[in-house]
Amino acid sequence: MNACQERIRPTDLPFLTDFWYVAGWRSEFESVGPHARTIIDQPIVLYRDRKNKLVALADRCAHRWAPLSLGRVEGDTLRCMYHGIRFGPDGACVAIPEQDVIPPKMCVRAYPVIERNKLVWVWMGSPDLADASLVPDLAALDQDGRKISFGSLDYKANYALIADNLLDLSHIGFLHENTAGRPVASGNLARACYLPGGSEAKTIDHGVRVESWVSGPAARNVLLPAAVPDGDLWTRTDFLVPGIFISEDRMYPYGVAERSGFRVPDPNIAALSDAISVQAVTPVSDRKTRYFYSFSPGADDVPASEFEAMWTVVKDTFAEDLKMIEAQQIIIDEHPAHQMAGIAADRGFVLFRKMVSRLAAEQSQTGGIGAI
Amino acid sequence: MNACQERIRPTDLPFLTDFWYVAGWRSEFESVGPHARTIIDQPIVLYRDRKNKLVALADRCAHRWAPLSLGRVEGDTLRCMYHGIRFGPDGACVAIPEQDVIPPKMCVRAYPVIERNKLVWVWMGSPDLADASLVPDLAALDQDGRKISFGSLDYKANYALIADNLLDLSHIGFLHENTAGRPVASGNLARACYLPGGSEAKTIDHGVRVESWVSGPAARNVLLPAAVPDGDLWTRTDFLVPGIFISEDRMYPYGVAERSGFRVPDPNIAALSDAISVQAVTPVSDRKTRYFYSFSPGADDVPASEFEAMWTVVKDTFAEDLKMIEAQQIIIDEHPAHQMAGIAADRGFVLFRKMVSRLAAEQSQTGGIGAI
Amino acid sequence: MNACQERIRPTDLPFLTDFWYVAGWRSEFESVGPHARTIIDQPIVLYRDRKNKLVALADRCAHRWAPLSLGRVEGDTLRCMYHGIRFGPDGACVAIPEQDVIPPKMCVRAYPVIERNKLVWVWMGSPDLADASLVPDLAALDQDGRKISFGSLDYKANYALIADNLLDLSHIGFLHENTAGRPVASGNLARACYLPGGSEAKTIDHGVRVESWVSGPAARNVLLPAAVPDGDLWTRTDFLVPGIFISEDRMYPYGVAERSGFRVPDPNIAALSDAISVQAVTPVSDRKTRYFYSFSPGADDVPASEFEAMWTVVKDTFAEDLKMIEAQQIIIDEHPAHQMAGIAADRGFVLFRKMVSRLAAEQSQTGGIGAI
Repeated sequence: MNACQERIRPTDLPFLTDFWYVAGWRSEFESVGPHARTIIDQPIVLYRDRKNKLVALADRCAHRWAPLSLGRVEGDTLRCMYHGIRFGPDGACVAIPEQDVIPPKMCVRAYPVIERNKLVWVWMGSPDLADASLVPDLAALDQDGRKISFGSLDYKANYALIADNLLDLSHIGFLHENTAGRPVASGNLARACYLPGGSEAKTIDHGVRVESWVSGPAARNVLLPAAVPDGDLWTRTDFLVPGIFISEDRMYPYGVAERSGFRVPDPNIAALSDAISVQAVTPVSDRKTRYFYSFSPGADDVPASEFEAMWTVVKDTFAEDLKMIEAQQIIIDEHPAHQMAGIAADRGFVLFRKMVSRLAAEQSQTGGIGAI
Repeated sequence: MNACQERIRPTDLPFLTDFWYVAGWRSEFESVGPHARTIIDQPIVLYRDRKNKLVALADRCAHRWAPLSLGRVEGDTLRCMYHGIRFGPDGACVAIPEQDVIPPKMCVRAYPVIERNKLVWVWMGSPDLADASLVPDLAALDQDGRKISFGSLDYKANYALIADNLLDLSHIGFLHENTAGRPVASGNLARACYLPGGSEAKTIDHGVRVESWVSGPAARNVLLPAAVPDGDLWTRTDFLVPGIFISEDRMYPYGVAERSGFRVPDPNIAALSDAISVQAVTPVSDRKTRYFYSFSPGADDVPASEFEAMWTVVKDTFAEDLKMIEAQQIIIDEHPAHQMAGIAADRGFVLFRKMVSRLAAEQSQTGGIGAI
Repeated sequence: MNACQERIRPTDLPFLTDFWYVAGWRSEFESVGPHARTIIDQPIVLYRDRKNKLVALADRCAHRWAPLSLGRVEGDTLRCMYHGIRFGPDGACVAIPEQDVIPPKMCVRAYPVIERNKLVWVWMGSPDLADASLVPDLAALDQDGRKISFGSLDYKANYALIADNLLDLSHIGFLHENTAGRPVASGNLARACYLPGGSEAKTIDHGVRVESWVSGPAARNVLLPAAVPDGDLWTRTDFLVPGIFISEDRMYPYGVAERSGFRVPDPNIAALSDAISVQAVTPVSDRKTRYFYSFSPGADDVPASEFEAMWTVVKDTFAEDLKMIEAQQIIIDEHPAHQMAGIAADRGFVLFRKMVSRLAAEQSQTGGIGAI
């Protein structure tokens, strides 16, 4: 019960630079652009070159800091529409009206950008370190035939509070008692339902994993397709730095939990259903965060009307999170010096906060890159 | 004419803690709740237990600072609807989901609360010092048969500016020349009208009292019932720390002022009318204040339509105060270093400001309690 | 190409006090008032006395800082409608209700004010230094028979960014490619069009002057009356401290540029057209600026419908400036520590910024007056 003694300061988490951040769903960037986004306090402009490749530059003309997102895409370049200066995909200035010499400082920062798994990713650290293999594997978003829906929300809160939320799903039975947590919110959620091992949080590579087995009617929530029978439900959620959340819910026939020693289910046993939700938390500023979410039900043959009803529940659920977290942020900001009391369920986000703090400290020791 | 030489800094007044504050009219708290209020920068949640007794707790779950006012009343307890932690009326945690041990710090501050005279009072200081007998006597609000109306306003201003306003009613003839001050605003208000002694401000226990006698037509304002004849009008206003305003206007037959030596009227002489207004100024933050007001006309048999017309004048009057004071606050905040020039009529609020400053100094010397 | 190496800090420009500022168009002050305006952070109230002369006082009653602009004009005086104190045109208090002695500090600052050339000017420095001859000569605004229109805009930006804009008109071909710059925005604006000497910026008394000759179709923009033939276009823009912009566009027959040595045209040669625009940039606060503009076409016999179309283009043009400059201000404020890269076209505003900085330094060395 160590976690209960912990006192966590309600301070924000620092921004990590050497990571791929979700700039948005690919569907947001179908047009040539320019498109304006802000990630960890850095304004960015994205546009498509003549080969339809996405380019990401600092959204700030090197001349007088007019936003390039008010500019115009011309071929592979982006022209600032204040005084007409043009920049190439590498951020170098290619033309200044009325002037032949281009001063060396007339350039803007270029950000590595990758389109993968229905998402657009931008590398916010030193370009030298941008390794495409570090983009989290979200192939689940691209499976043929899977029903899937996408959404996003803008939070007036630090990203840390959203990470806390996703790293402690014990809130579902309370905050979401009328939405995603409906059937399980019958007074004393979960405790009687968890199978041996309970809900377990542990550190993994670049993140924190929480796994649990629940059995019987308690395992049944409104997001489980009606056609799927009751059984043993295995849930795994990974929360990866800087803010990628991957959740999987698999229903198995009764007994599989025990046969798997209440650990990861045997891969040879077929699941009755397999629901996936990929979410991403992208800090905009210290009090603004953009939140991306998706939902794919546990079975592909869910009728359209049932899937639509589920999606409504998902959206309502995230609206409840937003309302609570923004209210929490206001309370925190009014009295920043107070201390919080910990509980056992905090373990997931305590591990995550330590990881982010450690990575931020390493980042500052190696100099990092920060904003230009 | 000493007051004229005074230079009063336009600084805000400090918040006093060891006092009963008006949280609202009782009618605002008829339902079980929870109800959110903020008093002197402290967010508070109020709810009714199973015996209908009002409970007041800090509106900030000890766990992750979610507002308890987004929670749910369950019997005598209040459950935080983020992660489900429950607190009792004394602020102690009574249950944490999934966990048997309750850490000692898992508690919230409880505030003494009293319902009296149509108002809800919350003690903002050390609970040990909460003495119900310190609640100002506002029995006037509860008199059987009295016609009375209630209202409230939210100011974007420090409470000190509202106190200034209520402690110098010489503004009525100007700011309210078309509302409460209508008939007396004929150029040179009051001076020719005040009987010997003028308008006198003096310190009383826990506050400042202003008394005056005015006679003849000048004593007649639009809030005097039509059926009441002209005469000598005696007015007493008490402004008590932290912000309770009690005003009484009694019309007497001509000559009573002189017979009373231009002082407090002889209690054996019956008044022709007796109008009462109780008001309260509750600081929310340094630039937000909640203002409560009521009005009871000088005679119980005022026709309903006349009373309704009076109430409209009262509301219009307070809307004029709000507009002026919020504009004054903006000017003050734009140039906080300037100095103000005093006049004789400032005496009431000069006395009050000194009293509050002294009480605040005593409070900080004895340690006080402040916010937890 | 020295300007290209320059690094200009995006800091705001300081406010100059010893200058005449435009408070507004005279048409804004036709009624008796009071009228509220704020200039370089100083709230001012203007009203007309019995002789219709404009008076300008600090908009802050000396007593409790209520805004005098919520007051009432009474004869030659202005009465504060909070507690009824009256001030004369010189700012001296002339009456306090209920009180004979007027304390010496009971006065407000009076500002010299001049109505000239359709504008109202207020002197923001020491009244001793207020010299009416320092009001810029804008007689052009008053020419009989001239068609002229007036407008104004409120910017959320420091005045320096608007000065930058008006001192580098190279932006017209880009930012205004669909409005005032339409016909000349064909890819490589201006360069091929400037006659020898190009666009020349130089310091003049109290300001910066930019002059240029352009010839042929490139000289033709949508604001040139249709009846005026192509030729050599001479443009002169003066930008005077603190923020007066006077622009003149004169079309001459082909050859006049060369005959004038590509310098100021020979005054004996009649112009084919002569368009004038007077504009004024009045700082309100560090992030608010009021912008006044006018436009008079190059010929008096322009048909009303053509003039109306031109005026629409002018308003659309200034709306584009506002959108760009407010966006630029946001970017600057998000990252105030960054540096800008200069180009040759910056020369005009580089000269102006140096002049303002020098004047501000002189002002602070001699003590200046500042706000009372």
